[in-house]
Amino acid sequence: MVGGGQLARMTAAAAVGLGATFRVLAGADSESAALVTHDVAVGSHLSLADLSKFAGECDVITFDHEHVPAAHLVALQAAGVLVRPGPGALQYAQDKLAMRHRLAELGAPVPRYAPVSSVADIVEFASAAPSAPARPPGWPVVLKAISGGYDGKGVWIVDSAGKAAEVVTAAAAHGTALMAEEFVPFRRELAAQVARSACGQGAAYPVVETVQVDGICREVIAPAPGIREDLAVEAQELALRIASALGVVGMLAVELFETPRGILVNELAMRPHNSGHWSIDGACTSQFEQHLRAVLDLPLGSPAPAVPGGYTVMANVLGGTDPDVYDRYIHVMAADPAVKVHFYGKEVRPGRKIGHVTVVGTPADSVESLRDRARRAASYLRWGTEDGD
Amino acid sequence: MVGGGQLARMTAAAAVGLGATFRVLAGADSESAALVTHDVAVGSHLSLADLSKFAGECDVITFDHEHVPAAHLVALQAAGVLVRPGPGALQYAQDKLAMRHRLAELGAPVPRYAPVSSVADIVEFASAAPSAPARPPGWPVVLKAISGGYDGKGVWIVDSAGKAAEVVTAAAAHGTALMAEEFVPFRRELAAQVARSACGQGAAYPVVETVQVDGICREVIAPAPGIREDLAVEAQELALRIASALGVVGMLAVELFETPRGILVNELAMRPHNSGHWSIDGACTSQFEQHLRAVLDLPLGSPAPAVPGGYTVMANVLGGTDPDVYDRYIHVMAADPAVKVHFYGKEVRPGRKIGHVTVVGTPADSVESLRDRARRAASYLRWGTEDGD
Repeated sequence: MVGGGQLARMTAAAAVGLGATFRVLAGADSESAALVTHDVAVGSHLSLADLSKFAGECDVITFDHEHVPAAHLVALQAAGVLVRPGPGALQYAQDKLAMRHRLAELGAPVPRYAPVSSVADIVEFASAAPSAPARPPGWPVVLKAISGGYDGKGVWIVDSAGKAAEVVTAAAAHGTALMAEEFVPFRRELAAQVARSACGQGAAYPVVETVQVDGICREVIAPAPGIREDLAVEAQELALRIASALGVVGMLAVELFETPRGILVNELAMRPHNSGHWSIDGACTSQFEQHLRAVLDLPLGSPAPAVPGGYTVMANVLGGTDPDVYDRYIHVMAADPAVKVHFYGKEVRPGRKIGHVTVVGTPADSVESLRDRARRAASYLRWGTEDGD
Repeated sequence: MVGGGQLARMTAAAAVGLGATFRVLAGADSESAALVTHDVAVGSHLSLADLSKFAGECDVITFDHEHVPAAHLVALQAAGVLVRPGPGALQYAQDKLAMRHRLAELGAPVPRYAPVSSVADIVEFASAAPSAPARPPGWPVVLKAISGGYDGKGVWIVDSAGKAAEVVTAAAAHGTALMAEEFVPFRRELAAQVARSACGQGAAYPVVETVQVDGICREVIAPAPGIREDLAVEAQELALRIASALGVVGMLAVELFETPRGILVNELAMRPHNSGHWSIDGACTSQFEQHLRAVLDLPLGSPAPAVPGGYTVMANVLGGTDPDVYDRYIHVMAADPAVKVHFYGKEVRPGRKIGHVTVVGTPADSVESLRDRARRAASYLRWGTEDGD
């Protein structure tokens, strides 16, 4: 696995039971996955030499992120390396405009979008009538970096030409191309995760609700509470169709908006994803084991919930201001012996994802009671109090 | 963790989520745990120098087996190393006669036993009346190596003075001291697993049924089907009492005979144990995570079943005659996507434990259907047929 973050770390743990030999290409010895993986190569995912050397020691390579340059992926594949997912699929996780074009071509429901290169383009986008009868055009407009981003951000919501101008200027300074999308007044955000193996077998996880705060995923509820059965099936079928059409091998997360007019695709990720961390404790097969099974072309495991009829709630643990979480860790374990704490071995920095907690419920547990327990644990780990944010 | 077998391997995986830095002292780089652990020291558990060096790099040491010489454990502890469980407890896992004396002293139910050093001693043991009104004395008699064993064996069941003489002669040749125990005509074998943390917190897992064939554990059913509630509670309380009285820190497995006259203690193990492998997939907190929590003096996790009211069945996978399990592995995954396969990374040798499979059921699944699925998977992995032994 290229990349040494927490996704690779959790994949390393999943590889143990499978008996698969797992190697990681990390940027440094101190990265999350490098701390727990037996075979660690240190190198840069931006260096074709490092990637080629690493790939030479592997039967198949896969990824913890989408930042390997497309040209390197193509070169590796041309050199005979099994790259899963391959560059043909990964381009759609790397280039949001290409993704939108391809999804529109497939007839998938997507927000109205257009490439923009000036404030005038954005003003025009804001004033253009949407193709479907929906809200009137106008502000706000969502601006996205087509690829990557800067200062840790890739999405900006702007409510005026003046604000748009600020983003256009900064993006130009960073050499970042932009696209505009309609602002979708969603009811909530959902994610549909599926796996697709090298030979084309598919498996769909229950559709989950994701709760974001300031653009950061804070909470995932599996399955999405009260979701209409037909909408859940539509989302699963859509994700399976996208995985197949794009030739994804491994896990695919389709982030969705649930709106009054149905679902719309927001983003795609072709790797294990934050929206699937609940599956370690809450599903028969975790997304990390499933990703390995898919890229190793093993038969896929059951994506069913571990406890039929129960909800699982995952809450991300963000860093607070106190770098020493040990006392808080003890407290959380003592307060709720059934909460599952997952730490990533990362240095604590304010707002950084340093772990997650999961609470698996039975049919007797209300969603709210499970959310409450997960939130209390995550809050305490961050702030040392159970009712922080 | 001292020892590089599958118990250390599965403990390594459990350490990932806890965020605990895990090191292993393995006999060789190729051992099961050494293949998946980031920090591997290669050395001998029989060498005080190797143990001391290893312990110097750890905050606390624990064990994957009970073969570290008692004198070394005492020396490490005297040098200030946190040894958990400590030599005061481990002596009872290393010396079966001392264990029997201590348990008898505690009033724990144990089979009739006596040290023996000659055939005459064994004949006398066979003819002596038991203290409790039970079966008449006589053959067979169970002979056990007080410590260790030879040729991979430590227990012999003999049905005559002639057979006893063969064991006495061989044991003497190996310098192995023997003890005799009554042959217990048990209904079935049970195991009660508990954890005890350094500060004395206890947690009791559901009492399980273990099925042995030729002295090798083949199957574990959690909880033990149809066990009387009072008997289960008695077994759990007994295990907690033993853990406390002996000063165990970590997991304790108490292997029991269920007999018409109640339960009798057979063996003790002070480490994660084969009877608890089901807990990885079938309990809220696996025995491996729990062992770490106990020896790190963290609050213990919930030992409750993952699915309330459901059974979990674990079957060991033994090596067959074909060293290449890959095709069989694919078949098992395809045939039953909900079976959890755990491989130990060990070379296949006939009869060797190379992995295990687990099937977690819901209240709707019968024990027999779950046993059938686990057995089919284990049989297929061994023999390439679903109805082998």
